[in-house]
Amino acid sequence: MEDKRMDAKEDDRVRESVIEGRNAVLEAFRAGKPIDRLYILDGCQDGPVMSIRREASKHDTPVRYVDKERLDQLSQTGKHQGVIARAAAYEYAEVEDILQIARDKGEPPFVFLLDNVEDPHNLGAIIRTANLAGAHGVIIPKNRAVGLTATVARTSAGALNYTPVAKVTNLVRTIEELKKEGMWFVCADMDGTIMYQLDLKGAIGLVIGNEGEGVGRLVKEKCDMVASIPMRGDIDSLNASVAAGVLAYEVVRQRMQG
Amino acid sequence: MEDKRMDAKEDDRVRESVIEGRNAVLEAFRAGKPIDRLYILDGCQDGPVMSIRREASKHDTPVRYVDKERLDQLSQTGKHQGVIARAAAYEYAEVEDILQIARDKGEPPFVFLLDNVEDPHNLGAIIRTANLAGAHGVIIPKNRAVGLTATVARTSAGALNYTPVAKVTNLVRTIEELKKEGMWFVCADMDGTIMYQLDLKGAIGLVIGNEGEGVGRLVKEKCDMVASIPMRGDIDSLNASVAAGVLAYEVVRQRMQG
Repeated sequence: MEDKRMDAKEDDRVRESVIEGRNAVLEAFRAGKPIDRLYILDGCQDGPVMSIRREASKHDTPVRYVDKERLDQLSQTGKHQGVIARAAAYEYAEVEDILQIARDKGEPPFVFLLDNVEDPHNLGAIIRTANLAGAHGVIIPKNRAVGLTATVARTSAGALNYTPVAKVTNLVRTIEELKKEGMWFVCADMDGTIMYQLDLKGAIGLVIGNEGEGVGRLVKEKCDMVASIPMRGDIDSLNASVAAGVLAYEVVRQRMQG
Repeated sequence: MEDKRMDAKEDDRVRESVIEGRNAVLEAFRAGKPIDRLYILDGCQDGPVMSIRREASKHDTPVRYVDKERLDQLSQTGKHQGVIARAAAYEYAEVEDILQIARDKGEPPFVFLLDNVEDPHNLGAIIRTANLAGAHGVIIPKNRAVGLTATVARTSAGALNYTPVAKVTNLVRTIEELKKEGMWFVCADMDGTIMYQLDLKGAIGLVIGNEGEGVGRLVKEKCDMVASIPMRGDIDSLNASVAAGVLAYEVVRQRMQG
């Protein structure tokens, strides 16, 4: 129940990185820096901008075409030249890294998959929960979802230093590939089976939905099980990070029973 | 997993209420308006201010003596006359109301007690969890802890309309009184018994600690059981609202087994 306060040095290290201007952004892509999102002035199609768009497409980086007011707002230097990139505060891992950690520990993989969690506080709290529930990593999609921003790092209370987060282009395809590795997938949804009645042991992927819309239809169709958390109150749903914690600890409870 | 968006009207209704000026604050007290905190200019001891201090003491309202800069900062009108009161966005209930709800439902009481939760987002998420876990109410202490602010109301996603929150002067005394009613108390702490091994059925009070310091020593000494959530990771602790959710749902699981 203790919130780790980060010291000033650590806080500095995870400060959100905004890269502005054509050369700076192009260099960042070519140096392999993890870019969460690219903002380009709408209608801008000259040579350098087209090069940047090619790099973004090569790296599956989401691009937003915005007006000058929005770019000016995002800019910290005032010299964006129509291009701003938002770099991740932390390096992303590969899905294979996560599986390797499970192998190294001699444990069946236990992975969180977040279907477009948008709130950085929720993402941070979920990474924190993943660490403490003994999950081997967290997988997030490239589009729409929030990336590893400084707020996420802070809210994770240090968990980002231990729990790898991989970013994938297509969550459905990743689920298909992990199924071939023998993993089972369970998503949380109100119309599912009460979680206590499901067998959540073994190699498992826990799918947590978006705060507003829950788990997407295509992702849900790929899940082997739909788990519901008992709702005994008057309102609709738990906070996304609380729901993730409740479900994750049902997995922990079942795993502890062997 | 759905976040209720409040419409503008509802948002208006829960807007944080700051009451400024000597007459306005005195009237608010005399009208029985729930005041979460009172700010008085340090050193100010004239007649009207002494009347306000007497009212605050009568209602056990926490008072902060602050400098002029702080008052100017808190002020929305610039006319605070050395006195600002922060009113709750929602009405508080009495502990007895909570017990009556349990009686009316024919259920053994299930109550959350928050030992100085400070973050309004945590308080809101915990009230939301209390509602969905089927708890009959939430008890918070008057001092230090955050009250029912507009942020708490929003984060509770509507749960504040259903789940009563009582504010008490002394959490230890309230626990002693509720024990006489046959309730048992469990607090969450790392050095406790793994929660799956405890009997959490029956009339139960779930004590959740402060984000930084956990459950206070005096409160912990009054608890019948200390429950720990299994920690299988590298960092110290879960987010307070996630921990409350995980523990609350262990109560739900055990209650469902009958």
